[in-house]
Amino acid sequence: MQTSQKIAVVGSGLVGTLLAIYLKKLGHTVHVYDRSEDIRKVEFSGRSINLVMSDRGWKTLEDIGLEDEIRKIGIPVDKRAIHTQDDKLNYQYYGKEGEAIFSLSRGVLNRRMIDLAEDAGVQFFFEHKIWDVTLATATLHIGETERGEWQELKYDKVFGADGAFSRIRHRMQRQSMFDYSQEFMKLGYKELHIPANADGTHKIDKNSLHIWPRGNFMLMALSNLDGTFTCTLFMPFVGENSFEELKDEQALVKFFAKYFPDTKEVIPDLVKDFFKNPTSYLAKMKCYPWTFEDKVALIGDSAHAIVPFYGQGMNAGFEDISVLSEMIAKHGDDWKTIFLEYQEIRKPNADAIAELAERNFTEMSSKTADAKFLLQKKIEKWFSDKHPNLWIPLYSRVTFSLQPYTEALAVGDLQNKIMEEIMLMENIEEKWNSEEVENKIIQLLGF
Amino acid sequence: MQTSQKIAVVGSGLVGTLLAIYLKKLGHTVHVYDRSEDIRKVEFSGRSINLVMSDRGWKTLEDIGLEDEIRKIGIPVDKRAIHTQDDKLNYQYYGKEGEAIFSLSRGVLNRRMIDLAEDAGVQFFFEHKIWDVTLATATLHIGETERGEWQELKYDKVFGADGAFSRIRHRMQRQSMFDYSQEFMKLGYKELHIPANADGTHKIDKNSLHIWPRGNFMLMALSNLDGTFTCTLFMPFVGENSFEELKDEQALVKFFAKYFPDTKEVIPDLVKDFFKNPTSYLAKMKCYPWTFEDKVALIGDSAHAIVPFYGQGMNAGFEDISVLSEMIAKHGDDWKTIFLEYQEIRKPNADAIAELAERNFTEMSSKTADAKFLLQKKIEKWFSDKHPNLWIPLYSRVTFSLQPYTEALAVGDLQNKIMEEIMLMENIEEKWNSEEVENKIIQLLGF
Repeated sequence: MQTSQKIAVVGSGLVGTLLAIYLKKLGHTVHVYDRSEDIRKVEFSGRSINLVMSDRGWKTLEDIGLEDEIRKIGIPVDKRAIHTQDDKLNYQYYGKEGEAIFSLSRGVLNRRMIDLAEDAGVQFFFEHKIWDVTLATATLHIGETERGEWQELKYDKVFGADGAFSRIRHRMQRQSMFDYSQEFMKLGYKELHIPANADGTHKIDKNSLHIWPRGNFMLMALSNLDGTFTCTLFMPFVGENSFEELKDEQALVKFFAKYFPDTKEVIPDLVKDFFKNPTSYLAKMKCYPWTFEDKVALIGDSAHAIVPFYGQGMNAGFEDISVLSEMIAKHGDDWKTIFLEYQEIRKPNADAIAELAERNFTEMSSKTADAKFLLQKKIEKWFSDKHPNLWIPLYSRVTFSLQPYTEALAVGDLQNKIMEEIMLMENIEEKWNSEEVENKIIQLLGF
Repeated sequence: MQTSQKIAVVGSGLVGTLLAIYLKKLGHTVHVYDRSEDIRKVEFSGRSINLVMSDRGWKTLEDIGLEDEIRKIGIPVDKRAIHTQDDKLNYQYYGKEGEAIFSLSRGVLNRRMIDLAEDAGVQFFFEHKIWDVTLATATLHIGETERGEWQELKYDKVFGADGAFSRIRHRMQRQSMFDYSQEFMKLGYKELHIPANADGTHKIDKNSLHIWPRGNFMLMALSNLDGTFTCTLFMPFVGENSFEELKDEQALVKFFAKYFPDTKEVIPDLVKDFFKNPTSYLAKMKCYPWTFEDKVALIGDSAHAIVPFYGQGMNAGFEDISVLSEMIAKHGDDWKTIFLEYQEIRKPNADAIAELAERNFTEMSSKTADAKFLLQKKIEKWFSDKHPNLWIPLYSRVTFSLQPYTEALAVGDLQNKIMEEIMLMENIEEKWNSEEVENKIIQLLGF
């Protein structure tokens, strides 16, 4: 048991709220601050991408006792449904029978988690703007405006769960020896949506992550409980096939007719949504260290903001909580060591998933439309089914296991080298599931 | 001629002050702000590394008409003097006969330039703290403390010449699509000094950059006009042969006796200086964009902070001014285009010199103690002397030419590949200046 502490969590997003529940259950006093309104009282912003919960996220939820509550509001997704430009539909299963990721609407999930946090006794302070923090004393500086009067709120610990543009990190960045980088992608995204049928059912398969891969841009769709889909169009801001080109209704409709012909029926509000919803940015952010003595710690996106293409942003943030929890179990009241080991364990893993997520854009937007790549995946799956102990595919390691991201990345690179050799075999298209290929993989694995 | 503008330069360092003189001579009203005291009234801080002026810096000074003034306060340095651990001294010339870099004390140079700027009509406001800038209106926010009353100062243009920890950039960083990274080296540095002889002469050769290369650490010394040398000890903060290890007088003296035996006579105040002077950090910083519309521009270290190992930090900053000047000559009152082209031309060059500077630590601290490397440099020099049109060494391209850094880097990489092959030739030690080697280089160059 830890001695009870007065803890502030800055940010009422998914990671902040779950962290607050966890800390409250440990017996601490927990206050959550957010500069925005209570998300339960507002319409969501039209800039969301649906979330997918996978094993790492479930593990943390299970440990905190929330798994069942959250399963109720998600939809299992066991495959990619790949919509080719010539109107064909290919399916690609993510894992073994019964393995699935869970599609969740960010708004629905966040609201539910705040309810659960309040039930657990966490206190929320919405529309409270934290402008600064005194690191050495875990003191928050709060006020209406940045240049107005500020009030000081002293805590024992402060967690910065305030996202990619964290104010808490902003203060840490101004110390010596703080490494930091932010980089904006040349790619933006726009939320669109597929409404439900009149009877509340889904217009397309709800258990698939739908992708329309088109090279340097793509459309994707993930189902919601209410029969709708949240769609996301990813494309460059400028250049060929870019947001810049889709300036008016005519250009937009023509573009969708050409590249996404099968969406005409299912996205009736294309024009309205496209010009109403903002074009959002994607940023990557890395930093280190993540903690200040035994006083302040960053967690989730404020410590490691990644691109969304592996569906691991939330999962990685939840796994931060699991690792923090392991360190708390190990070191009790020694918060200095807890924070130190937490950041040392998590930093390389955060860097690894950042790398994997970035690579996955190419996989989703280009490779899923490539016959050679699909064959490679088919061979990997076939071999993995035959030899489950010899070959766990990278996607499964990241998504359906708790193996550290660093290891998943390293093994994935090794597997990829092997598959490059396999794909060079003559007539691989015909003999892909032959004993020859099987033996060659075993040999290349070093057995 | 440009229409006269009211321009604020934030930062009275070398780049800020030279920029101010340049802008004043163009007919603008120029105010320079600095949060620190007037450097002419204070003792310098004991954290300086001597500067070296090379061709790029001279070019800018010449264009502004200050070259002669500055030459008076520098000492030409035409070679490295390499002090080996077994007390030998090797010389390595930097360029051709007559080519030299100029050693300058930062304090002496900065004071002289501020005098020259005041003579030119620039107004300085020392101990004026700029906390923020409104980018869209080029308005500075100034006050005693960050949380106190601020006054607003409206300008037509603002230049952020406020160094690696720029406040002006700090505001720009909080925009969307602003890429930024800062990284601290594991290496720190400490200023030491070699006093003058009683008669005011130098204790060791004043026309050499002295290096004591020792692998992961090194000592260097550059001469000053007053007969002294500014020495800099570069070494890791922690680990083997680190600042952490040199905790007390005994450890320090033993360490210097072992690694720098020939400094005993010439650094009499080692113990006093070492424990009095701070251990300073080295940071790399990159960002983009550097400008905001026609209102605000970053210049020098605030746009591109690099490590000091190529002696190009100040030169690159001065070259920023030359490029800005070219754009002003080209575009007149169209400041938006001036700023846009300035950043587009300079950014890749700043990245290139950052890369070269980082690589040069290994060259200075390790390779200069390596017989193979010294032979390679000897061959390059020999070939270059014979064929000055075919081979200009990388160091000369960076230091004794105005070739863009990007090109110097690319050609340098190519030359290095060629030399790798040459160094693999059998008995290269004996036949290094043979016709065979000469012909092989010519062949590898593609002639």
